[in-house]
Parts: sequence; structure tokens; C-alpha cells
Amino acid sequence: MKNFVEPIEKLINEFTRLPGVGRKTASRYAYKIVNMQKADAESFVNAIIDAKNRVRYCSICGNYTDSDICSTCSKGNQKLVCVVAEPKDILALEKVRDFSGVYHVLHGLLSPLEGRGPDEIRIKELLERISKYQVEEVIMATSPTVEGEATAMYIAKLLKPLGVKVTRIAQGVALGSDLEYVDEVTLSRAILDRKEI
Amino acid sequence: MKNFVEPIEKLINEFTRLPGVGRKTASRYAYKIVNMQKADAESFVNAIIDAKNRVRYCSICGNYTDSDICSTCSKGNQKLVCVVAEPKDILALEKVRDFSGVYHVLHGLLSPLEGRGPDEIRIKELLERISKYQVEEVIMATSPTVEGEATAMYIAKLLKPLGVKVTRIAQGVALGSDLEYVDEVTLSRAILDRKEI
Repeated sequence: MKNFVEPIEKLINEFTRLPGVGRKTASRYAYKIVNMQKADAESFVNAIIDAKNRVRYCSICGNYTDSDICSTCSKGNQKLVCVVAEPKDILALEKVRDFSGVYHVLHGLLSPLEGRGPDEIRIKELLERISKYQVEEVIMATSPTVEGEATAMYIAKLLKPLGVKVTRIAQGVALGSDLEYVDEVTLSRAILDRKEI
Repeated sequence: MKNFVEPIEKLINEFTRLPGVGRKTASRYAYKIVNMQKADAESFVNAIIDAKNRVRYCSICGNYTDSDICSTCSKGNQKLVCVVAEPKDILALEKVRDFSGVYHVLHGLLSPLEGRGPDEIRIKELLERISKYQVEEVIMATSPTVEGEATAMYIAKLLKPLGVKVTRIAQGVALGSDLEYVDEVTLSRAILDRKEI
């Protein structure tokens, strides 16, 4: 491996912090930065500083926003709350245009192994929201992983006594997928949750 | 497409300047930055500023360096010069460990279409180098594209009268490639440049 000059080496190391970026991609990014006009590099730096300084959490749902309350919370139906682990999960869900409700970001999932219990994620805030806005339905949209399932079950148990309808996003075979290549666990779940047609 | 809050939107736009980065990848990078510890974001920003401020061109070869003369120029054999278009081309060549010579970065290729003539790229500097260091061989390692070829031929014509040996990297079928999938132009060149075995 070539030894880069020290400032470039450092920049490459910084770029490898980004998701999915290895040394080769990072070195292409670093060369691009070094090759940029000074004004372009400055606007890059300012965008990072600005994002770090101005972006904060919505005081209702915990998603990123640059004001006190995010745009989804200020116009969405607060009686229908979709619970997710991280802000980036909202990006995926936002593609589904017909959801009229709002989100609740837990900022993590329950994980005994990593020492994350109910107090480390935003469950208390969810409970407060439910009584404040008389929430009617909570959709648990955490990932179908062990941690995602456990968190969904834990929250469902907490909310049931409050008279809130708690639902879970459906699990089964993905649309367009080939049955031959679907893993066993997913297939067994798809059969278990079969619907009458 | 989801509307991001303005500071995140701006940061995403900045990330799309990087080579090969589309909006989706840029938004993942931006979320990562927003989610970083403040100190980590600061070290990221400082690495960019530092690279822009401290990295400059080697006064001999034109490659990136943080001192006056790059490490390759200070220890390499100045009589064997490998000419490339951009600093990033040196990265690829450096993997070939057995090259003991030095480089010369043109910072561009001749391109009448884009208005780049001989005065816009570092040809004058190459000529000065040749007389100053009594260069014996110049290897033209520009890409085998129309512009790369034209630049190699132009420089070869300039240097021949000076008694310098000018060579061109070999063109032919890539090692490990399947002959069935080699394009016609490459194959015809490979036949033309055949070697006795």
C-alpha cells in the first residue's frame, strides 16, 4: 500500500468512518477534496459544521429537525404513531406515501448484550406521548431482527394495558422474491401468518 | 423523495460532489455525520481543512506532497521518469513495487475539445526536468484513451530530438481476462504488438 502524505492519510482515515467506505473509496474521496477549489472545500466544511450545529432532535418524535418540532409532527396525525429505531429508518418508510401518521424514534433497540435497557431508549417519551395526544394506534416498525422483535414485544406489553392498539409490520416473503431462495425462518413465518384470499 | 431539513439537505448536496456518490449514499453519509460525536465531526472538518492547507504540489514532479519535494522525488532515480495525467494515477502505478524511477504529473491531457493545449498541462516542466537531470528514459503512462494517446504521441515527438528514449506502457489483453470478452480494438492491438516467445 502506498504511503500517502500525512494530511491526506489523515483525511482518508476520516472518510473510512463513513458507512460502507473502505480505504480505496476513502482515498478517491480524499483526492477529490484535495483537488477541489478552495471555495468548494470551504462550503463542504461549512455544510458539516452547519449540520452539526443546527440539526437537533424533534421534541416530540426524536427525528432530526432544524426547528423545535419537525414538519411531520407539525402536520401529521398524532393519534397514529409509527415506532422506529433510528432516524434513517424513517427515510425508508417515507417512501410509502400513504402513511398519514407520525413517527417515534427510539434511538436504539433493547440489547442486554450491549447494556441497553428500557431507560436507554426513548420509551418513557413514547408513554408520555400516548397520554398527551390520546394515541389510538402504535405501529411497531423496528427491524425483524432479534433486538427489533424483543423491543417490539416489550413495548407492546407496556402499551396494551393503556388501551392502545399495538400493531407490528407484517413479516413474510418479499414482493417479487423467488420462493426458492427465501430463507426458512421467513418462509415458516409467512405460512404461519397466511391470510385468506 | 423525502424532503430533508435544510442543513441535512445541504450536506447531502456536498457529499454528492464526491466521485461515485449519488443522493442515496450521500444521505447515508450525512446521517452518519449528524449522528457523530461533536469531537469526531470536528476532527473530520479539521482533516479537510488541513489537507487543503498543507497539501501542495511537489516542485519537481507535481504530485501531492506536504513538503517542497515529495518522498518519491527525493529518493527515486531522476533519470527514469514515468509521465501520468493525474496524481491519482500514481496510486495505481505505486502498486508495482519494482519501479525505481520517479513520476511527472501533467495535471491534465491535451484536449482540443476542452481547450487544453500544451501550455495548459505541465509539458514545459517536463522539458526543464529532462535537461536538468539528464533524463535517460521517459515512460508515457497516460491512459489508452484518445486523449491519452494523443498526449503521449505529442510528448514523444517533442522529446525524440533531445535524444531521450521515450516508451509507452504496453497495450494488449489484460492478464486473466477471457479472450471471448476482449473488445476488438484491444484484440487487434494485441495481435499487432505480438511478441516472439
